[in-house]
Amino acid sequence: MDSCLFCSIAKKEIPAEVIYENTGALAFLDIYPMAPGHTLVIPKRHVDTILDLPEDDFVSVFKAVREVEKMVIKSLKPDGFTLGINQGKVSGQEVDHLHIHIAPRFFGDGGKSFQTIVSNIPKESIKEIAKKLKI
Amino acid sequence: MDSCLFCSIAKKEIPAEVIYENTGALAFLDIYPMAPGHTLVIPKRHVDTILDLPEDDFVSVFKAVREVEKMVIKSLKPDGFTLGINQGKVSGQEVDHLHIHIAPRFFGDGGKSFQTIVSNIPKESIKEIAKKLKI
Repeated sequence: MDSCLFCSIAKKEIPAEVIYENTGALAFLDIYPMAPGHTLVIPKRHVDTILDLPEDDFVSVFKAVREVEKMVIKSLKPDGFTLGINQGKVSGQEVDHLHIHIAPRFFGDGGKSFQTIVSNIPKESIKEIAKKLKI
Repeated sequence: MDSCLFCSIAKKEIPAEVIYENTGALAFLDIYPMAPGHTLVIPKRHVDTILDLPEDDFVSVFKAVREVEKMVIKSLKPDGFTLGINQGKVSGQEVDHLHIHIAPRFFGDGGKSFQTIVSNIPKESIKEIAKKLKI
């Protein structure tokens, strides 16, 4: 994945505001912050999505997310967080290297909940959908 | 946590459309679906947020997320996913038991990206914020 921006950041070939690192994961500030302290956590090894993430790496990634939250809490004192992943072009994934967004939230920031991202209410009941999924 | 709705679902005291289960995690369809196949993954043990999630459980939770995605891909053939966590009242967390939203996404569904949840652009540069976070 020669041309992957986040691989280049992981290899320190491209500068970034790195705030935390462990064996498998790296955390750096988003250059287009949606909130103060908006951070991205990536696995150092390239994967497009969590479907391909090795188990070792997901421990590293999860630890990184928790550590970043602790750092943000200590320093910026947010009231909460919204965490998320855009998976695939349809959801707005812009760099094809898995990254978890950590957005600190503050009362009065005018933000919304995760559920406002899409309103595509199914016509079928959840009972019918569950039946399909379990086949 | 006697009165926790999701603990009751985990203990099978309250019915839910459970589609997947492993030793530490459970996945069931959201009763207010934002998209067909909208699923919640929870750790069976009660924690409010990922700050308190034991390492064993986060392996179970991550595996559950991946398995749910595979089931949804096979059955509903989405074009991608948006994944997310509302952490704290400020971000819209309604049940104080950690849950990961998995929202299947389809081209033409009218949905947006994670970044549209909040627009609270910091006044400071990310360099200045990084400096604060690293203290």
